[in-house]
Amino acid sequence: MGRVTERRKVIRIRDGAVSTRPDTLVAEEPLEIRLNGKPLAITMRTPGDDFALAAGFLVSEGVLAEQGDLRNIVYCAGATADGSNTYNVVDVKTAPGVRVPDITLERNVYTTSSCGLCGKASLDAVRTTARWPIADTPPLRVTPELLADLPDRLRASQRVFDRTGGLHAAALFTEDGELVDVREDVGRHNAVDKLVGRALQNGDLPLSRSVLLVSGRASFELAQKAVMAGIPVLAAVSAPSSLAVDLAAETGLTLVGFLRGSSMNVYAGEDRVALRAAAVQG
Amino acid sequence: MGRVTERRKVIRIRDGAVSTRPDTLVAEEPLEIRLNGKPLAITMRTPGDDFALAAGFLVSEGVLAEQGDLRNIVYCAGATADGSNTYNVVDVKTAPGVRVPDITLERNVYTTSSCGLCGKASLDAVRTTARWPIADTPPLRVTPELLADLPDRLRASQRVFDRTGGLHAAALFTEDGELVDVREDVGRHNAVDKLVGRALQNGDLPLSRSVLLVSGRASFELAQKAVMAGIPVLAAVSAPSSLAVDLAAETGLTLVGFLRGSSMNVYAGEDRVALRAAAVQG
Repeated sequence: MGRVTERRKVIRIRDGAVSTRPDTLVAEEPLEIRLNGKPLAITMRTPGDDFALAAGFLVSEGVLAEQGDLRNIVYCAGATADGSNTYNVVDVKTAPGVRVPDITLERNVYTTSSCGLCGKASLDAVRTTARWPIADTPPLRVTPELLADLPDRLRASQRVFDRTGGLHAAALFTEDGELVDVREDVGRHNAVDKLVGRALQNGDLPLSRSVLLVSGRASFELAQKAVMAGIPVLAAVSAPSSLAVDLAAETGLTLVGFLRGSSMNVYAGEDRVALRAAAVQG
Repeated sequence: MGRVTERRKVIRIRDGAVSTRPDTLVAEEPLEIRLNGKPLAITMRTPGDDFALAAGFLVSEGVLAEQGDLRNIVYCAGATADGSNTYNVVDVKTAPGVRVPDITLERNVYTTSSCGLCGKASLDAVRTTARWPIADTPPLRVTPELLADLPDRLRASQRVFDRTGGLHAAALFTEDGELVDVREDVGRHNAVDKLVGRALQNGDLPLSRSVLLVSGRASFELAQKAVMAGIPVLAAVSAPSSLAVDLAAETGLTLVGFLRGSSMNVYAGEDRVALRAAAVQG
């Protein structure tokens, strides 16, 4: 439990000089997520916040949307032959009446193959399963200056990254730029799931007054997670994919990429970014 | 087909100045991989090299190990309601006699929950399913200088990254540092699958005289893919995870991380790195 980092011996080579020393690595272990006792998915994750990870994963999958949907989450004891607990298998039990969809394949599987698998189908699926439509959220506006400050605030709060260089981070901020929560994980999607899952556990969904910042790229999967949690603004330090931009445009999500220094690109939902009209060129 | 990039309108903010221009984004679309007609997995990938991606995925999963295991790969026509082809569903048909394991959950699912899910079980599973044990490969030695050159050689050959900033890259080099193949994808694992799948299609497995370079971190999943393809050396520009190092140590894979300039860390399999013994300190 809580094995966020592990120590290993490493041979360092620096300009031809060789030395041996202990190194701190980010821990990676499989987590099996069961839904009402039935195995649903396995993700490679950094241990810690496992219940939040499982809850957030199920928000992304459209199973859970609010605190009351969740009955409880437990580690499955006796998962090994000798009956010991690896703390790598969690079972999420839903409250009575929660509809459990048939999720049979991998993450992001909202489409059935009979409807033709394509990006458009993926977008439609997110739109139809989203319980907290972003279009319905109250107006929210952030300035470019506020957005530009977020990466520094995230870095200041990251605990493990400096030691291992191996973690992705995701952070939730208020519309005033105040850091609410930050999670780190070997998998970018897990870090977001942990944030969202914790918010669900605290009764804070939808996160309709929040800005989500991710340390790397913005893929379809991350945009989908923002939409499913009702988060109106997703900002990424690096590039978005085409399908992430399409999903943002379709659902009303504000998507900011290449957030570096005082520069950024706004790919969708620009109505939430307070641009000085006089400065608009081209 | 071949939609590696797509254009979208973007609002650029640079030091308070706002402009609108077209931007090039990396394309992301779902790909469903079927095995002998049965849906197996869906991955979000950059279109292109889809047959290689599917073949490489199945090498990683332990289904395919050599050219003769593969009968053919086709796009599934008529996958949409109107009978058109989205080019997002491929069916891999195995040759007679190829054993198809029961793969029911997500990527990396080698363990059954009854044996206790943990990192150790994941390592054991890779070791027992690997058809090309690295320990059996002929001796191979590379110098730190050769390794240090690889990231520059990779960057020189990357076509899309400079335009989008959104792609991961993976490259195969000979033991002499010659670039054999490079693939780019929105997903790091897909880029490696495309390399390995192409090698399988060409009859080049095991890749026992190759060095695999990846542009980012080295996770368990990437180390697993190297091992399953018989690649003896995996080098990453960024950090490895604990489980990647453990897998490398257990299977004999040489794992190099933080490969930057003339610096690098060797986490396992150091016998393949030609260190000058006189320079060893501490």
